[in-house]
Amino acid sequence: MNNFQRNVYLSNLELEEAKELFFTEVEEEIEALGTEILRVEDSLNRIAAKPVFAKISSPYFNASAMDGIAIRYKSTFEANEVNPVRLKKGSDFIYVDTGDVIKDPFDSVIMIEDVVKIDDETVEIIKAASPWQHVRPVGEDIVASEMIIPAFHKITPVDIGALLSGGILEIAVIKKPRVGIIPTGTEIINPEEEISEGKIIDSNSRMFEALVVQYGGQANRYKPVVDDYKLIKEAMIKAVEENDLVVINAGSSAGSEDYSSKIIEELGKVIAHGIAIKPGKPAILGKINNKPIIGLPGYPVSAYFVFDAFVTPLIFKYLKHEEEKRQKVEAILSSRLMSSLKHLEFVRIKIGKIGEKLIATPLNRGAGVTMSLVRADGVLKIPKTVEGIEAGEKIEVELLKDYKSIENTIVSIGSHDIIMDIIANEMNLKSKGMNLSSAHVGSLGGIMASRRGECHIAPIHLLDDKTGVYNIAYAKKYLSNKKMALIKGVKRVQGLMVREGNPKNINSIKDLTREDIIFVNRQKGAGTRVLLDYKLNELSINPEDIKGYDREMTTHMTVATAVLSGTADVGMGIESVAKTMHLDFIPIGEEDYDFLIEETFLEEKKIKEFIKVLKSEDLAKQLEEIGGYCLEAPGEIVHIN
Amino acid sequence: MNNFQRNVYLSNLELEEAKELFFTEVEEEIEALGTEILRVEDSLNRIAAKPVFAKISSPYFNASAMDGIAIRYKSTFEANEVNPVRLKKGSDFIYVDTGDVIKDPFDSVIMIEDVVKIDDETVEIIKAASPWQHVRPVGEDIVASEMIIPAFHKITPVDIGALLSGGILEIAVIKKPRVGIIPTGTEIINPEEEISEGKIIDSNSRMFEALVVQYGGQANRYKPVVDDYKLIKEAMIKAVEENDLVVINAGSSAGSEDYSSKIIEELGKVIAHGIAIKPGKPAILGKINNKPIIGLPGYPVSAYFVFDAFVTPLIFKYLKHEEEKRQKVEAILSSRLMSSLKHLEFVRIKIGKIGEKLIATPLNRGAGVTMSLVRADGVLKIPKTVEGIEAGEKIEVELLKDYKSIENTIVSIGSHDIIMDIIANEMNLKSKGMNLSSAHVGSLGGIMASRRGECHIAPIHLLDDKTGVYNIAYAKKYLSNKKMALIKGVKRVQGLMVREGNPKNINSIKDLTREDIIFVNRQKGAGTRVLLDYKLNELSINPEDIKGYDREMTTHMTVATAVLSGTADVGMGIESVAKTMHLDFIPIGEEDYDFLIEETFLEEKKIKEFIKVLKSEDLAKQLEEIGGYCLEAPGEIVHIN
Repeated sequence: MNNFQRNVYLSNLELEEAKELFFTEVEEEIEALGTEILRVEDSLNRIAAKPVFAKISSPYFNASAMDGIAIRYKSTFEANEVNPVRLKKGSDFIYVDTGDVIKDPFDSVIMIEDVVKIDDETVEIIKAASPWQHVRPVGEDIVASEMIIPAFHKITPVDIGALLSGGILEIAVIKKPRVGIIPTGTEIINPEEEISEGKIIDSNSRMFEALVVQYGGQANRYKPVVDDYKLIKEAMIKAVEENDLVVINAGSSAGSEDYSSKIIEELGKVIAHGIAIKPGKPAILGKINNKPIIGLPGYPVSAYFVFDAFVTPLIFKYLKHEEEKRQKVEAILSSRLMSSLKHLEFVRIKIGKIGEKLIATPLNRGAGVTMSLVRADGVLKIPKTVEGIEAGEKIEVELLKDYKSIENTIVSIGSHDIIMDIIANEMNLKSKGMNLSSAHVGSLGGIMASRRGECHIAPIHLLDDKTGVYNIAYAKKYLSNKKMALIKGVKRVQGLMVREGNPKNINSIKDLTREDIIFVNRQKGAGTRVLLDYKLNELSINPEDIKGYDREMTTHMTVATAVLSGTADVGMGIESVAKTMHLDFIPIGEEDYDFLIEETFLEEKKIKEFIKVLKSEDLAKQLEEIGGYCLEAPGEIVHIN
Repeated sequence: MNNFQRNVYLSNLELEEAKELFFTEVEEEIEALGTEILRVEDSLNRIAAKPVFAKISSPYFNASAMDGIAIRYKSTFEANEVNPVRLKKGSDFIYVDTGDVIKDPFDSVIMIEDVVKIDDETVEIIKAASPWQHVRPVGEDIVASEMIIPAFHKITPVDIGALLSGGILEIAVIKKPRVGIIPTGTEIINPEEEISEGKIIDSNSRMFEALVVQYGGQANRYKPVVDDYKLIKEAMIKAVEENDLVVINAGSSAGSEDYSSKIIEELGKVIAHGIAIKPGKPAILGKINNKPIIGLPGYPVSAYFVFDAFVTPLIFKYLKHEEEKRQKVEAILSSRLMSSLKHLEFVRIKIGKIGEKLIATPLNRGAGVTMSLVRADGVLKIPKTVEGIEAGEKIEVELLKDYKSIENTIVSIGSHDIIMDIIANEMNLKSKGMNLSSAHVGSLGGIMASRRGECHIAPIHLLDDKTGVYNIAYAKKYLSNKKMALIKGVKRVQGLMVREGNPKNINSIKDLTREDIIFVNRQKGAGTRVLLDYKLNELSINPEDIKGYDREMTTHMTVATAVLSGTADVGMGIESVAKTMHLDFIPIGEEDYDFLIEETFLEEKKIKEFIKVLKSEDLAKQLEEIGGYCLEAPGEIVHIN
């Protein structure tokens, strides 16, 4: 095992080029997918294989369209207000309800409202009836032999009703394409197994399985296969035999244990290996026995985008049904994005409706960050020919979520605290349809976002070193041009987080310069970083003397995790996080964590709901349970300028 | 059983009023729906009952982010291009692949591209590494205790991946609300049963069942119950016991066999009976044991709209999930619509994109016409306060179909022929994603629609009585202001349709005036009507001497059905329809059935596809099989002015 044996990508095709090449190669196989006969009642959301023509008419007989009496229209010819006509029950008329059969000797219906009852056997009418009035003719709805639905139509609940009314009991639909999913990798374990170092939970193949089901295919997920040429080959042969389309996960990067591409070449043909997209470059497109086979990269986000680019359209092609296009919206990019000229890039985007504008904020671009997909409202595609997009530029975003849920979401950009998750959850519980979405960019980042009008609220905790007062000075300094307010939040305790039992005996900020101590820092602009630097300055400590000062994390949670996992001995953060993560905590001071907001937004319904939650007993109770917080006047408004 | 025993509606509530009243009455029951625990893998599209927090971090260990070597960063401090550092395998470095564990004694990764291999045991590097470079830290994706999804979130495939990565195997979701569906009526039969006069196939309850499934509920459909007070009462008691919500179909109009409302009153409470909507007025809203029960009218379209107004929102309320709002578009109404001030009306709408405008054409407004729902692209709601909308006015339409499918649809308004179904189907088969939608309003109606710019093509067959030439004269007369063309279609045979064996011995148009003959006519403006009137004029026959001349049908098929069912002895129509419907046929003459079109539309892709189909061998073959057609130059373009 060394680097000389490694694969080199066979190609670096552009996405559209790769799609065309691949789909053309497997076209015949796709066309050949058969049909199956289902009971109409079981055909919801399936695709009709042929046009369906009615076998019988509906209604099947001439039926009364009203409650009233059935008569012979000729017997009413002479009726008028001056000379009413009397009709005898049985011979001249019968009572009918809506839907009753109208047949010989009767050929017309008079509404009950126009019938004057004389006695149990006799009625009187004062207006002549025309032939077949108030009668629903045979076939008013559906005429036998009429086409009810065309070929390749997706069957809806209403269609099911119409088909049954037209006498159709069974229908030919396109078979569900069977998608075989093979997870590979010696490190892969099933979710039920105990996790340990070096192991990865096989979540990808479950995500693929759900995607296949969502799009109308049939998913066959196989057990994970260890990195063994022979075993992977066997698994592939079996999967190709049993499915219409095979997906093999991992084994598609140039890592030393990559057999997929070799095996596909051996059993069939590699059409492309390496696509100019990011994430997703190491994808493999091939065919075995003319069946498409796709190698998906191991990183979940890469895997998702390659699946979306190749597997999803294939499922729809098999089903002979048009893929529903995602809604596109125009939004304003909130921060500069650089991209390489080497590939088309998919950037996950969080969208907020701030005033009348849609603001697009890029999420974590890491190929391993599943949560960026969970949180994304949409995707921005940066073409290969574009090197970057400036903040403030208009971009087009393909929505992954319902537009309405975006409209009802409060966009929070700024500092991180557990309280944001708790409020988000309380809002979901109590304010139906309203959401809170948080981006964690630190306090100063929040202020800047607020200045650019990219968020509704900016949670901040920024100490003014001149006055010792939190938040107001910064808001005045950076947002003098807008009428701003602070929604008071919580007081919380900041300090040093160390492993349980404090094994390295860290007692104060001075200890950070010790030779045996590795620190992990927060990013510039974070309130916690501002506080640290303030303290270092106070104590005349040179940051260069602290090992790890340059290693930056963007949330309290990731700092805590670094300490917990031993890659650092100490980090700075808030007490609540230390408690949640079972770390020991050395307090340094108390600070104000408040929400900066434009005055005009205070009138919005969703903000009012936010303040209601902030003031609620339920929130107070939860914060008390967690500890590390003090509530003085949550939800109070402080007008700034 | 007579009209004095009939129910009178208890109320005529407006829709929004009824909704509020009803939903408030059953609120507690809805809130109380429980939760169930599922395996995460089985939770796709279910609604999370609580927020879900990660149990473990992902990645679970510090992992190499690259293929390369793991090293101690301190051992590389002095490396530069002039003084490379050599490292020994095993003690100073190990080879790692992406995803491999990085742990003591190693704390950094160097990419394989930056490593120079000296021999099997030695490598050289020329640049110092920083601590933890190219290492994915524990929790980079998900930090243990972090919220993955909030309460009441609908679970997506991506969520499933993230939940499993966060160590979550099981999840609490909101139970599926159980919806009991009781079809009632002595006339109701199951689709499998042989239909006969007076019987109605129970298609409604299957439509409801599919709607419930579509919206995430669990449907329990019961067997049809005959109109018997005791039996219906028993069925209701059972259904209320076994479900969270009960729907009872039919039995809600004021017909003589309506027990629903009385039984609900007896067992619980009728909240409203009669809603000011059309169709759907006779709806019943009630509760039994605090469980909502809804009486749906018998007509399928009425039933659909009442279901949509009350049952659908209830299902979403039970699920504590926001109902997805339908997309709305602005369109121009193609023909005047009158509506009553008594109710809110739902009008089924066909939409066409003609040039840059969306044109909305109302479909059949009959409450019994399921096909109007099958064909509808959307719904127009005419408020109670509006008496009518003029042609040309802008209206808002709620879409029932994907907007894209509307964009790709050729709108045909005009005369009816079987060929339109065949072409629609061929286009579905061959021109992926393109459709043909036909409205049948007769030839003159088509010309008028074309003049108002409401259709792409107008199929017409109009004889000019001066020249004896078809179609061109009319186009010139009515469309002199536009550059028009004719796409040549088919020659077809017109004649009289009579029952098999011609029992009344009808031989020519002259026979229509016979005392024993009942005729059924086409509507004014239909090409067939124009031809008939031309012939009558030629023969000096007075239309008043023809019984049934005033009874108008709008398609060949409905005329044929009237003859077939015996409500008329003869009607005029085309040979292909007579053959399809097994009627005898007396030919009268041959005519040209062509497609009128604006010249500019000839350039559109979908029209080119249409012409391609028209010229195809496949179409010719199918028409030959049906008979009654002659193809001279199908698809040929004749420029008019």
